[in-house]
Amino acid sequence: MTDVTDAPEPPTTDAVRRHDPEVRGFASDNYAGVHPEVLAALALANGGHQVAYGGDAYTEHLQEVFRRHFGPAAQTFPVFNGTGANNTALMALTERWGAVICPATAHINTDEAGAPERMAGLKLTPVPTPDGKLTPELIDREAFGFDDEHRAQPQVVSITQTTELGTCYTPEEVKAICDHAHELGMAVHMDGSRLANAAASLNVPPARFTTDAGVDVLSFGGTKNGLLLGDCVVVLSPDRVRGIPNLRKMSMQLASKMRFVSVQFEALLAGDLWLRSAAHANAMARRLERAVRAVDGVRITQKVQSNAVFATLPKEVSERLQKRYRFYFWDEAVGEVRWMCSFDTTEQDIDAFAAAIAEEMHEYA
Amino acid sequence: MTDVTDAPEPPTTDAVRRHDPEVRGFASDNYAGVHPEVLAALALANGGHQVAYGGDAYTEHLQEVFRRHFGPAAQTFPVFNGTGANNTALMALTERWGAVICPATAHINTDEAGAPERMAGLKLTPVPTPDGKLTPELIDREAFGFDDEHRAQPQVVSITQTTELGTCYTPEEVKAICDHAHELGMAVHMDGSRLANAAASLNVPPARFTTDAGVDVLSFGGTKNGLLLGDCVVVLSPDRVRGIPNLRKMSMQLASKMRFVSVQFEALLAGDLWLRSAAHANAMARRLERAVRAVDGVRITQKVQSNAVFATLPKEVSERLQKRYRFYFWDEAVGEVRWMCSFDTTEQDIDAFAAAIAEEMHEYA
Amino acid sequence: MTDVTDAPEPPTTDAVRRHDPEVRGFASDNYAGVHPEVLAALALANGGHQVAYGGDAYTEHLQEVFRRHFGPAAQTFPVFNGTGANNTALMALTERWGAVICPATAHINTDEAGAPERMAGLKLTPVPTPDGKLTPELIDREAFGFDDEHRAQPQVVSITQTTELGTCYTPEEVKAICDHAHELGMAVHMDGSRLANAAASLNVPPARFTTDAGVDVLSFGGTKNGLLLGDCVVVLSPDRVRGIPNLRKMSMQLASKMRFVSVQFEALLAGDLWLRSAAHANAMARRLERAVRAVDGVRITQKVQSNAVFATLPKEVSERLQKRYRFYFWDEAVGEVRWMCSFDTTEQDIDAFAAAIAEEMHEYA
Amino acid sequence: MTDVTDAPEPPTTDAVRRHDPEVRGFASDNYAGVHPEVLAALALANGGHQVAYGGDAYTEHLQEVFRRHFGPAAQTFPVFNGTGANNTALMALTERWGAVICPATAHINTDEAGAPERMAGLKLTPVPTPDGKLTPELIDREAFGFDDEHRAQPQVVSITQTTELGTCYTPEEVKAICDHAHELGMAVHMDGSRLANAAASLNVPPARFTTDAGVDVLSFGGTKNGLLLGDCVVVLSPDRVRGIPNLRKMSMQLASKMRFVSVQFEALLAGDLWLRSAAHANAMARRLERAVRAVDGVRITQKVQSNAVFATLPKEVSERLQKRYRFYFWDEAVGEVRWMCSFDTTEQDIDAFAAAIAEEMHEYA
Repeated sequence: MTDVTDAPEPPTTDAVRRHDPEVRGFASDNYAGVHPEVLAALALANGGHQVAYGGDAYTEHLQEVFRRHFGPAAQTFPVFNGTGANNTALMALTERWGAVICPATAHINTDEAGAPERMAGLKLTPVPTPDGKLTPELIDREAFGFDDEHRAQPQVVSITQTTELGTCYTPEEVKAICDHAHELGMAVHMDGSRLANAAASLNVPPARFTTDAGVDVLSFGGTKNGLLLGDCVVVLSPDRVRGIPNLRKMSMQLASKMRFVSVQFEALLAGDLWLRSAAHANAMARRLERAVRAVDGVRITQKVQSNAVFATLPKEVSERLQKRYRFYFWDEAVGEVRWMCSFDTTEQDIDAFAAAIAEEMHEYA
Repeated sequence: MTDVTDAPEPPTTDAVRRHDPEVRGFASDNYAGVHPEVLAALALANGGHQVAYGGDAYTEHLQEVFRRHFGPAAQTFPVFNGTGANNTALMALTERWGAVICPATAHINTDEAGAPERMAGLKLTPVPTPDGKLTPELIDREAFGFDDEHRAQPQVVSITQTTELGTCYTPEEVKAICDHAHELGMAVHMDGSRLANAAASLNVPPARFTTDAGVDVLSFGGTKNGLLLGDCVVVLSPDRVRGIPNLRKMSMQLASKMRFVSVQFEALLAGDLWLRSAAHANAMARRLERAVRAVDGVRITQKVQSNAVFATLPKEVSERLQKRYRFYFWDEAVGEVRWMCSFDTTEQDIDAFAAAIAEEMHEYA
Repeated sequence: MTDVTDAPEPPTTDAVRRHDPEVRGFASDNYAGVHPEVLAALALANGGHQVAYGGDAYTEHLQEVFRRHFGPAAQTFPVFNGTGANNTALMALTERWGAVICPATAHINTDEAGAPERMAGLKLTPVPTPDGKLTPELIDREAFGFDDEHRAQPQVVSITQTTELGTCYTPEEVKAICDHAHELGMAVHMDGSRLANAAASLNVPPARFTTDAGVDVLSFGGTKNGLLLGDCVVVLSPDRVRGIPNLRKMSMQLASKMRFVSVQFEALLAGDLWLRSAAHANAMARRLERAVRAVDGVRITQKVQSNAVFATLPKEVSERLQKRYRFYFWDEAVGEVRWMCSFDTTEQDIDAFAAAIAEEMHEYA
Repeated sequence: MTDVTDAPEPPTTDAVRRHDPEVRGFASDNYAGVHPEVLAALALANGGHQVAYGGDAYTEHLQEVFRRHFGPAAQTFPVFNGTGANNTALMALTERWGAVICPATAHINTDEAGAPERMAGLKLTPVPTPDGKLTPELIDREAFGFDDEHRAQPQVVSITQTTELGTCYTPEEVKAICDHAHELGMAVHMDGSRLANAAASLNVPPARFTTDAGVDVLSFGGTKNGLLLGDCVVVLSPDRVRGIPNLRKMSMQLASKMRFVSVQFEALLAGDLWLRSAAHANAMARRLERAVRAVDGVRITQKVQSNAVFATLPKEVSERLQKRYRFYFWDEAVGEVRWMCSFDTTEQDIDAFAAAIAEEMHEYA
């Protein structure tokens, strides 16, 4: 580790602290702030002039960092956020007439305000799943009509690892999807907004369920794992993509001072920060799961395979809890909630929250 | 000013410094890094959980900061970069069948890889200008056909302040454009990627040539003035826009940890940092201009009204100079170059560069 | 009826007849040609000069023709085809951030190659249905998140009458959908590619299940009912739409010699040709249904409420039948086929086809 | 020629003749109707069932017809109109990040309501020209920045033959453009909305200035030369295009009853109808030019190389003339008008119009 005590000490600012840095909740892993090691990296990259738009030394080095994790063919393109990474990746993998098969719960389908359709010009053909995970069989529900000009052409399968439901594909499951997609002439995109959590959960290097399993392009997210901001389009099959530099720019995703995006990823990936943070968040979710399984009336609804706990409990109880801790309903109709842990969640946070859940359930019963 | 010595001291990071913080050039104001006061603000906003996607205390407060500069009607939407701000703003001001009248040199026309066309679905109708500045007369070259369904409908005039050629509109010139556009039923967008430089150059508050002059929506840029990253869509005429939150999200411009974008703007605008930095960059450009006017064979091609100097000199000389200092050709065919100054350009930088120019010209002669 | 014997008799052409005008099948109602009365109308509108792009006397008169059927507020915009009408209509009803709730089987979702997404910039949120028909309850599966910028905003419900499965909404069912959509702030679009078949089937004037029921914009199809080509965007709620002339042009749907599109609709709608043709096609489908219900091993899978018969039978039998008559598999996996009747299907056609079905089934058994 | 007296005689229609077939003007060649031989062809193709969406015998044969004119590699895709043909062609020739260099006067730039930008997602980089014609030198004004991700990438040069100003490229001029474009890695598209007029004017077979000159894709227009409606995307360099069937469908340009589009082109191109009609229209324009050159105060502003005459005359005179004959101002500011001739313009029409011009000028003087 580099000692950064020689970094210029910024003594003053006209900005004012407006929040309590001790308050944490369970709403989202991007309610958390920036990991101190990442903040230190920003200072390190500061000062002097560096070529804008990715011609800097940090972005150049980042290529090497990603190749170490994802193999020698990996090409890395930093962007601002996950939606930007996903849409740049999907455009690079498709023709103008392409369609993307994804789970109905996919972020690209539910939470990007239609960016894939409106900005990337893609049709999504979503498939309902029980747990946010596609399978070759589920893919086949939309993988047809390849010679029919009336049908948007399925050209990509997009999966999320870990899924939006906190579940995790095994390397074998990813491989089966990739093999199937490739046989049908389709490519595979992985939305890895929480890829580190998957690696920590599966306890394997990330290449095992990406490069080695046949994934063609990866959106590698950093924001949910302690970055200030940043995502990378990581190309694992260079022969399958076209035009990423142009697509990134026209997608409004080309950072001028890219060194500050790249150095964050270096801070995350050069050592084990990515794994430490993800493993910790996962452990906190498991701790919460354990505590909550002991509470009558709360039902865990998805396997806890990362940093998310999905549960049903009486709506009234959830609403009372929400006055004490921030978290979201996932499916209000059935009383399902989502509790997220992050790199900065503490054991005390979990224990206090679990106690609050038990308390409110008891009150209710 | 807040003393931030109590900010958590980040002691270590796995990232490594890969550049010489003492090297500066004249290629672009976004080759520079982050102003130390801005970096300090990031630390200040860190820690604890804050609502993502703009529901945080810093973004809320930012509204007030911008209202102080741009009047009580101002509504502020932080985004990632200037291309994102411009396109979100232009969509918010137009119907699906709209066209945007802009100078041929406009950033939206030349440097956004077609984002306005492909992402925002707009037609640009560029007008050649001598100095990057539109006038009512120049606008009229494209402001016609309002009842013709075959013609993309002119709905917005977009101007840049300061322009891509370093020139500056007076408040009166902006007002004449706004009055003319409004009479014709069009709105006015200002690309203010270097708005602070204009205010410093004109020595008037920014509202004078924006809100007071009739500008409807502003892209307010921070990156070229010492931010790590960030731009704001600032709505000055709320009645003329629709759907900015939705447009921002679908344009892949909604930062999850928005507090870190917003606090940078607070650091810039709460006090006088914006003006100090811009005035300094402008002064450095004027210093360079003065020095260079004394050099035989170098001709200044545009008025120096901000932090840019445009000049023609023998191509051979420029190429030799580029081995010593980074800068770009603007129009290689005619030997025109662009020299940019930034908040961290020093008098020594200017003097050394001017000396180098003189030296290389002498060598050449 | 106008006698057109004074129409200029075209005596010769270099084109050559290349098909047998006595051969008909059951593949699609647009395998049929042009109704002779429609062809006669083309000749009538020919000769002399008429203002292009809709400024002609036929298009002007067409407004009156449609008002007679759909009420005094109706505004009619001829276009080339159904995909063009649907997408022009949907754009006119939505903001750039809109989403359209439709049945999963909707033509806009399955058979327009992604035009709604790529050309109109819309997100479709399809809902599975048993019979191609939405209900208020089914709409509610996607009608949420109206204040969530992450979600493509539901702004239109699109239904097809008759549906792609040959079923038919009653006026009351349409009204319930419109009331529900309007309460939620959404508009209603009806894809009326086979609207005449619905009117004939329900035995009510078309206004009953369109204008009177609350439909806001209608795509009124002519091609499947004996036109050479043509569809109309018929606006029933003028206050809910914007920019149709501009949207039609930019959608590449503005016919220069529009008189020849408009006069076809006049031929169809000025008298009862639309109803004669549709009622006949429906009757032929019912005749086929009756005949086929008597055949062991063939199962009718949807109510026969228009000119389509959906059935399952052994795949082998279908394939043998396809050597004798053209028709399509609807869902090859389950052996479901679709048999379409058209204005020119004869009783003899039906009887011979039914006999062939019985024959092949017998052979198979 | 086929005698079509055995075509079914359509005796009646509910449509009513609403115009005087003896009135003609000079506004546009698509104010004219359908050539009688084309109308006869429609009747010929009618009756019976034919596979929809281009699987019919007429569309199949059309391939052969076009190969005869444009060489053995030609692939022909009928669409509805010129805007549809242009945009389908341009998409087929470009990547998502492509730009199209065209004359500022190009139809795609001025008269398609932004369809290239909004529907095809292309950036146009228009170049001012004196006569509507590009040259290698003019192309070079926009043919740069091929390695710059900030710049929309020039990938196609689009020229119009004959141009929107009635001028005509020689085969050598087209070849010079194609050679230059190809050397730079760009393709060439020709908007041939009036291609027949060019062939007639140059007195060479169309292949001479298309296939032989290096044009890659052609929009071949029929509507302005006597068709009811129809345009064809004609691919001359199959290796340079991708996905036309899919692009045509998603562009809402796939006719269901395509036989009726195709048979019109057969009527036009199987014999010499295309040439007879175009040569006649050209001759009428030259007759008008000759007559008008004799009138003091009228100045011909463009070479008359097809069926258009551009002229300046006192605005007051034009306005009085417009009460007697329909025609358009081209550039109202300078009093320039456009007079178009068509296949059905007669010598008497010309002589009467020329007399009227002389009369009104005399009145004015």
